[in-house]
Formats: sequence, C-alpha cells, structure tokens
Amino acid sequence: MAQKTLGVLLFPEFELLDVFGPLEAFGQAKDSFRIVTVAEHAGPVPSAQGPRAMADYGFEDAPPMDMILVPGGMGTRREVNNRALVDWLAGQGRRAETMTSVCTGAALLARAGILDGRRATTNKRSFAWVVEQGPKVDWIRQARWVDDGNVVTSSGVSAGIDMALHLIGRVAGPAVRDEVATRMEYEWHDDAAHDPFAKVWGLV
Amino acid sequence: MAQKTLGVLLFPEFELLDVFGPLEAFGQAKDSFRIVTVAEHAGPVPSAQGPRAMADYGFEDAPPMDMILVPGGMGTRREVNNRALVDWLAGQGRRAETMTSVCTGAALLARAGILDGRRATTNKRSFAWVVEQGPKVDWIRQARWVDDGNVVTSSGVSAGIDMALHLIGRVAGPAVRDEVATRMEYEWHDDAAHDPFAKVWGLV
Repeated sequence: MAQKTLGVLLFPEFELLDVFGPLEAFGQAKDSFRIVTVAEHAGPVPSAQGPRAMADYGFEDAPPMDMILVPGGMGTRREVNNRALVDWLAGQGRRAETMTSVCTGAALLARAGILDGRRATTNKRSFAWVVEQGPKVDWIRQARWVDDGNVVTSSGVSAGIDMALHLIGRVAGPAVRDEVATRMEYEWHDDAAHDPFAKVWGLV
Repeated sequence: MAQKTLGVLLFPEFELLDVFGPLEAFGQAKDSFRIVTVAEHAGPVPSAQGPRAMADYGFEDAPPMDMILVPGGMGTRREVNNRALVDWLAGQGRRAETMTSVCTGAALLARAGILDGRRATTNKRSFAWVVEQGPKVDWIRQARWVDDGNVVTSSGVSAGIDMALHLIGRVAGPAVRDEVATRMEYEWHDDAAHDPFAKVWGLV
C-alpha cells in the first residue's frame, strides 16, 4: 500500500495537543503515513501554549497531500478571517481525499465551505461560536468524533488522538491501529459516540 | 503564588507526545507554569515522528528552571552516551526543585545519577533497556507514574499527560488540575498504579 501524505496546518496560537496527539499516532504508523507541516509561511509557528513548531512548507510550496488535519486553538478566532488560509483550505478540500479537524479547527473547515451539508462536530466549550461559523453544517452536539466519509471531525483536544486512531484503522487496518495504541500505552476510546463533555458543557 | 519555570529538554528523535501531551496540560495552567524548551543548541529539533519543534534555548543560555521534563523516544538510545547532555541534566538535578521524565526519558535521568536510590518507572516495552542504564534505581514494574518527591517519572507516552495533571494538582491544587483536564476534554487516570501495559509487555 502506498504511503499517504498527511498535511498538518499550523497557524499562530494553534493548540499543541490538537496537532501532536494525532501526529504521535500517525507517526507511529510510518509505513502508511508521511507527515508534513504547512503554514501560511514556512518556519517557526508559536502555539497557544507558547512552544513553537516548525512549518516545513508554506502555502506556496507545499507538496500534494492526501489528507489534511486542521487543529483548533485560540488562533482560530483570528484565522476564520484570514482569507489566504480559508482559500487555501477550500482548495485542499477539492484535491485531498480526506479533510479532518480537531477541536475548533472545524470552524476553519466550515468557513472554507467544506462542511456545508455534512455531519460534523467540534469541541464542546466553544460549540456556540463554531456553529456560527457554519450555519449550513449538520453539527452533532454529542460525539467524540464524526466520520462523514471524506470529512472527519473530532471534539476537543484529546479527542483528536481517538479520531487519529480511527483513521489509522480505516487506512491501515485494525491490527496496525491497535499496535499503535499499545505502543503509545494509550487506552483509546473506540466508541465515536462516547462524549461525557457534551454534558459537562451543557449541550445535552 | 509565583509561576514555576518548566524546562523541557529536546533532542533529535524525541517522542512527540512525551513532550506535547504534558505541555498541553501545563500550558493550560498558565498562572502556575511558564514553559521553556531547551536543547544542546537552540533552534529546530526533529522528533522521532518527523515534525520539528523549536528549542528556545541552548544549554549555554537557558534561564534558571524550577522543574525539568525529559521526554523519551528513539533518540534516548544515542543521548545516554552524550556527555554534554547527561552532565547538563546532572547539574539541573542539583538546582531544580523537581526532575520529571516520560517514557524512556528515565534512562537519561538514570545516566545522570538522579534516580540512584530512588523509586522510578519508565515505559514498559523498553523496560529492560532502561533498567540497564540505572542499576542503582528501584525500578517499579507496574505504575502509570511514580511520585518520589522531587523526582517524578512516568510510564510510556500517553502516561505523561496523567503525570502532568498529577503535578499540576501538586503545585496549583486539585481545582486547577480538574479544570485543565476538562478543558482538554480528557478523562484522566488519577490512579498512579493503573498500568495495564505492564501486563501487555509481560512485566507482571
């Protein structure tokens, strides 16, 4: 099986675990996934928590990608109004096999029109704000992740790890997925509907 | 309460989630922790999974730090023989309040003599190799993390998140800790003895 290229979008104030939780999992499945990081401009990008990650590519020189992962974080409040980023995502949505998001990353996919008429979720604390970014989206109030085929979205922060394991299972099979979880010493949530935080944040 | 400075050690082929799982949690508790990243030389450092993180400081110019976090990853196999890194850790062990590790990061603390006569754990898949690096350490075969006062070590990869939450509780109190876990939408393991992976890897 050919390796899939997974492109991870970075922007200032991205949420650390939204990016590196999934990348830990995908990175353990090296035979199936090659990871590249992309930002508007290549170079160091500060996270919401402070530490900086390197973008390997800018929008101009990024290679073709099979999957795109969009993280959340406080930076999404600004980036929903960044035309260059939203247009770039819309273009990727036409070319990539699968578009995915963690947490408020769904707001960026929504603004790019990628979620219109589709089932999607996002983090529960910022649910109302994200919903405003995509009035034509069928937002699911209680879900750890939602698989709507070529669009897969997850709930807040740590839920991205579970969505990543689900996608690894879809692409590389359950044996690889379970081996990755065990190597991470991670007891994964295999039930996409498991979401106690919908109740914590008053959505159900 | 004064903010604690948490220094995170980076080296080539560090494990992504060992670093960024804990930093997500500590970074959410901004009133209590300031995060700095440190490597032998400042600048981009490639992870075991490929993506690069930026080291804010090199060993020469790092500021005083209250806590040190040492990740694991394949790079530890090489770094146990890196005299500059092991000596730097030994020096930090004399100055910092608390030394912590995730996964095979314990091998580096062991080589620096910081774990001698202390209780410690590490990841379960590489347990035998780590034990060889510290023959005078009281290695605990089944534990998600081990709190031995100013030395706190965790099991593999995702266990670092739970250890970080434990340390946030110790420094900032249980209310802050629980709020951080909820914001991460993470159901944390509050039992340090919870370690099903010890059995998976044949240690018990």
